[in-house]
Amino acid sequence: MRSIIFILGWIMLVLAVLMLLPIATSAVYEETEGLAFAVVAFLSAICGVLLIRTKPATVKFYAKEGLACTALGWIVLSLVGAVPFTLSGEIPSYLDAVFETVSGFTTTGASILRSVEQMSHTTNMWRCFTHWIGGMGILVFLLAVLPMVGGSNMQLMKAESPGPSVGKLVPKVRFTAQLLYGLYVALTILMILLLIAGRMPLYDAICTACGTAGTGGFGIYNDSCASFSPYLQWVITIFMILFGVNFNVYYLIFLRKFRDALRCEELHWYLGIILMAGLLIFRNIAGRFETVEQGLRTVFFQVATIITTTGFSTVDFDLWPTFSKTIIILLMFIGACAGSTGGGTKVSRIAIIGKSFFSYIRSFLHPRAVRKIKFEGKEVETETLRAIFVYYTGVFLIVAVSVLLVSLDGFNFETSFSAVAATFNNIGPGFGMAGPASNYADFSKLSKCVMIFDMLAGRLEVFPVILLLYPRFWREVGMEIYTRRMRSGRGYMDRRRLHNSK
Amino acid sequence: MRSIIFILGWIMLVLAVLMLLPIATSAVYEETEGLAFAVVAFLSAICGVLLIRTKPATVKFYAKEGLACTALGWIVLSLVGAVPFTLSGEIPSYLDAVFETVSGFTTTGASILRSVEQMSHTTNMWRCFTHWIGGMGILVFLLAVLPMVGGSNMQLMKAESPGPSVGKLVPKVRFTAQLLYGLYVALTILMILLLIAGRMPLYDAICTACGTAGTGGFGIYNDSCASFSPYLQWVITIFMILFGVNFNVYYLIFLRKFRDALRCEELHWYLGIILMAGLLIFRNIAGRFETVEQGLRTVFFQVATIITTTGFSTVDFDLWPTFSKTIIILLMFIGACAGSTGGGTKVSRIAIIGKSFFSYIRSFLHPRAVRKIKFEGKEVETETLRAIFVYYTGVFLIVAVSVLLVSLDGFNFETSFSAVAATFNNIGPGFGMAGPASNYADFSKLSKCVMIFDMLAGRLEVFPVILLLYPRFWREVGMEIYTRRMRSGRGYMDRRRLHNSK
Repeated sequence: MRSIIFILGWIMLVLAVLMLLPIATSAVYEETEGLAFAVVAFLSAICGVLLIRTKPATVKFYAKEGLACTALGWIVLSLVGAVPFTLSGEIPSYLDAVFETVSGFTTTGASILRSVEQMSHTTNMWRCFTHWIGGMGILVFLLAVLPMVGGSNMQLMKAESPGPSVGKLVPKVRFTAQLLYGLYVALTILMILLLIAGRMPLYDAICTACGTAGTGGFGIYNDSCASFSPYLQWVITIFMILFGVNFNVYYLIFLRKFRDALRCEELHWYLGIILMAGLLIFRNIAGRFETVEQGLRTVFFQVATIITTTGFSTVDFDLWPTFSKTIIILLMFIGACAGSTGGGTKVSRIAIIGKSFFSYIRSFLHPRAVRKIKFEGKEVETETLRAIFVYYTGVFLIVAVSVLLVSLDGFNFETSFSAVAATFNNIGPGFGMAGPASNYADFSKLSKCVMIFDMLAGRLEVFPVILLLYPRFWREVGMEIYTRRMRSGRGYMDRRRLHNSK
Repeated sequence: MRSIIFILGWIMLVLAVLMLLPIATSAVYEETEGLAFAVVAFLSAICGVLLIRTKPATVKFYAKEGLACTALGWIVLSLVGAVPFTLSGEIPSYLDAVFETVSGFTTTGASILRSVEQMSHTTNMWRCFTHWIGGMGILVFLLAVLPMVGGSNMQLMKAESPGPSVGKLVPKVRFTAQLLYGLYVALTILMILLLIAGRMPLYDAICTACGTAGTGGFGIYNDSCASFSPYLQWVITIFMILFGVNFNVYYLIFLRKFRDALRCEELHWYLGIILMAGLLIFRNIAGRFETVEQGLRTVFFQVATIITTTGFSTVDFDLWPTFSKTIIILLMFIGACAGSTGGGTKVSRIAIIGKSFFSYIRSFLHPRAVRKIKFEGKEVETETLRAIFVYYTGVFLIVAVSVLLVSLDGFNFETSFSAVAATFNNIGPGFGMAGPASNYADFSKLSKCVMIFDMLAGRLEVFPVILLLYPRFWREVGMEIYTRRMRSGRGYMDRRRLHNSK
């Protein structure tokens, strides 16, 4: 437990430091909203320092603590990060502010704001910056900057990072974390430069790049990216796709192992799916566009925004025909590559279960043939397969219960289902009431709570948050504290008894 | 291959015999439609006898042949069974007739008829009777009546019977098949008697009982069961639930092992789900009814009709609020018990994956604990789990591709999705255009073909029909025939060479 509190302390301290960006923005634009951020940053820093002082002798995490710490870390991050919105009065309801912040950190991009253009520069900068922080993960950041005691903190990284087999990049956790953030920062800066080259103002470029890098989707204009020039839309499309790629590929390129990078199986599936989905939708709605370039640009922008779970839009795809909308819904559940900043259930999982299915069918034809399947050149272990299937069971369980609860609001099935799909898969816009031209303001408080849970469950891949819902987990935490107290108490009693008997 | 042709011959012969019922109906009501049935029955019988004469030395089935035989058997059954509809002119389009027949044999109950009341008694009797035949399965029927050579015909039964672990009732296949049909006939007759006791005419009682026993859903009135008396509706509700129970339970009752029968875990889950779903929906829409009895009757009728995948209706549940409709959609995918006449993905599979999920979560709390799960008192083997997960992968693959193809018709997402869900899970009515107050007549030819495939894939639990789509299967069948011919050819050549060299 003390290890968890120690980490939570660091998270609060780091959050305070990160809030310097909106505070600086506030100073540049001479806005008063910065004051709220300054107050929260100050208080968060004090709390953080106090919690860090409880530092235990060794900071080690096993699976259970790793999962619990990740879930609690993200919850604390969101609860504290939401305070300035309410304090400054820009989002009066604290529940709405938490929804917006969770949507930011989980890189969902679902907004309860009816008009983002009315927000201050400070607030919008913080909204977009939460995407950037959440994209690579706060714990990965901590691991990159903190010299931790003990070497088994892989559990922390495994619990937070998306995809079935992450963190095998480099044996040293800290080096991996630093490398990941290095690549992340470099790609983000490259994107900002390319956006500025397209005559986008610096402030807009930073916000848009943060939203793209984290595959988040908060924009600073009500029409998202519709008013941007074709050049800017293509840049954003390409960078959305780039940030949806497994960062393993960039690491291999960094090591100049170009052939290995290109051989990445997940990359082939990912680009294949994008290409196929794009061409199918283009065929379906080509008649709506004046030029082929406009058609391809619009279609591939929306495909990229959905499969990478970013959530920008240049068009209201809620108005597309059912065939195209069905493809969009399928893309929502596929998501980006494992080890990227994107959400969804990840291309590699889809590829592995697809292979598993066809190998099973083949086994009817050749009963004696070995039924092992390979992915990325390695054999997929039974345990990995089981983890994937259990993960999908969790996904359908959570989605089913969530749709049921959200449907109590009485909106139609398409709205309820796509709102849950869009929040759970960290995309942002869904269809109907939750479509790109609309927002999440009109959902009930219960639905907002459900969707906050879904966004966290989707981003942290089900298990950490389910564990927090598990009564037995809390009973055990209680037991642990209780026995520790009992032990120290009995120790005291024993000593007294010893003393008396003398 | 010859074993498969032999079985197909028997299926055609049995089909001819089964057509005596509509022919008899035709004679009673003095209708001319019986002539079409007589012609088809005659031709089918001749084909059947010719095919049976190719009888191989031993009739043995391994997994591959068992699956292929089942799929082909059901296809032949449907293609031949549909001819009288078109021949008599009552369903002019042969595609529509095949849709209606497949819908009948797979116990789906989705109809392309705009008004069933305009159909002749003969045709309606045949429509309802196909449900009864399909409910327990044509191959189970064959196994019950045919003295087969060889003892490994379990593969046939396994491929056709619903659920993950069927056919373990009794070691002897033939005895099992006879026992199942015996129980099935007894329950059906009991239901007919109870319906007649409620003053239903004999003809109506037979048709309704056939539709209920097979959990099919074809009715003989345009409003399905809405005009029936409360007593009749309750009888139908109870029998729908009874036919959705695993027949293992009835076998145990038959052996007077009442305690074992009541201890059946799947039964508890099944009744628990029905009760919970019913009460949740009742809470949601109680205000719409005049009396509590009317409310409970209506709600439990629809819950029973959906979870057992029957497809009768007494009310247009498409008009219910989204919360209730979402529960209905969830019930659609759960379905009835394994080893019953119902469709869907089966209660036992849901129960096993649910248990598997929570055992996995628990393993985070106690990493060293054994993660084995039990169902019906027995440990669930890894291989069973894998089969279940691969099955669900197939389900989602087929549903996804089907929704995509059906959505080309341009109906909204709710209609496309629920039409596929209702046909794949062998229910019948969905929502929107496919709702209880509507029918499947307006879907395009492509959509009807897709749904015919879905009904067969759902009834035969994915693998048999997928195998037929697998190019490698056909290549191997081709290879087999080719090598056999080559061998006999070479044998001839060898003999000639021997002769010449002498």
